[in-house]
Amino acid sequence: MNYPNGKKVKTQHATKNNTPHDRFSNRGMTLEKDINDTNNYYLSRGLCVIHKKPTPVQIVKVDYPKRSAAVIKEAYFKQASTTDYNGLYKGRYIDFEAKETKNKTSFPLSNFHQHQIDHMEDIVKHEGICFVIIRFQAYNESYVFPAVKLFPYWHRQFKDGRKSIPYTAVKDEGTLIPASFPALVDYLTVVDEIFF
Amino acid sequence: MNYPNGKKVKTQHATKNNTPHDRFSNRGMTLEKDINDTNNYYLSRGLCVIHKKPTPVQIVKVDYPKRSAAVIKEAYFKQASTTDYNGLYKGRYIDFEAKETKNKTSFPLSNFHQHQIDHMEDIVKHEGICFVIIRFQAYNESYVFPAVKLFPYWHRQFKDGRKSIPYTAVKDEGTLIPASFPALVDYLTVVDEIFF
Repeated sequence: MNYPNGKKVKTQHATKNNTPHDRFSNRGMTLEKDINDTNNYYLSRGLCVIHKKPTPVQIVKVDYPKRSAAVIKEAYFKQASTTDYNGLYKGRYIDFEAKETKNKTSFPLSNFHQHQIDHMEDIVKHEGICFVIIRFQAYNESYVFPAVKLFPYWHRQFKDGRKSIPYTAVKDEGTLIPASFPALVDYLTVVDEIFF
Repeated sequence: MNYPNGKKVKTQHATKNNTPHDRFSNRGMTLEKDINDTNNYYLSRGLCVIHKKPTPVQIVKVDYPKRSAAVIKEAYFKQASTTDYNGLYKGRYIDFEAKETKNKTSFPLSNFHQHQIDHMEDIVKHEGICFVIIRFQAYNESYVFPAVKLFPYWHRQFKDGRKSIPYTAVKDEGTLIPASFPALVDYLTVVDEIFF
């Protein structure tokens, strides 16, 4: 490895219950963990089969120490070309992305990138159930916001320049997700309401 | 990193068009690449939205050189808890695993592990379309083998000890996938035939 200008390198270690990428980037950790716990509960109850996809990584160098497992020695985080979660519920294909914000008045569209929007448009076209889960950390509120309601905001930003969805619009056009235990983000109840 | 007994460490570099894991392990490369090319073609034609999931990796150490992208310095390949491919076709959820063998007379069941079988059983239960693509390299033949036909072979191995599916059974119970260009493994035509 080449460290430019001999600058210091910060190293962090992943912990057991954190997906490393989010732990390192310090973003989205709580919501992701809550959804994973919810999905595990759903799966254990036989309600649906929905999983988070692995974090995409570009692997550059792998070592094979004798008598030990292969060790990845150099790799980089890649941008995902799809959403993070997909699966199957009541015979229907389900696809969603989950994002949280510290912002109190709006949800920044920079949480998504064009590839993900393209993917979500494809899913809607092919009759899948597609939405985003948006959490406002300040209010501890999570919403199901259908992809078809996200698209106009996404495309409008290139016209009028507004790069976020107002909190009031998320509240009006989305549906608040009830929290229970152990379904910490009980989004299936909202999916039932909106899509079935 | 600790290399036991000062043993030599073999290092390999990934190339652009290979997914590193398969290149390094030297297994499944051709079939995986053919399916990815086919899926890209399907996607570009708007026929379906089916993607390979990223290789699951357990990240242990990440460096943050200043003014550069984060570098993963230590990570390990993890066993997948689901299948490699899933997505959406004609409003239906699709899920499959793809494996190839050099064996000429049978397909070894060791190509799957219990978690994947559990996952496929869940998919069938929730009314998803689920199958495996099996390629016999010696004959350059790829088959769609429905998951419901795989399960009996899987469970039987713990009773009578037969740890493979005979080639003749794959031929009889599966459906040969036509190869065309650019759909090198044109499995959707078989899916149409079997599941619709």
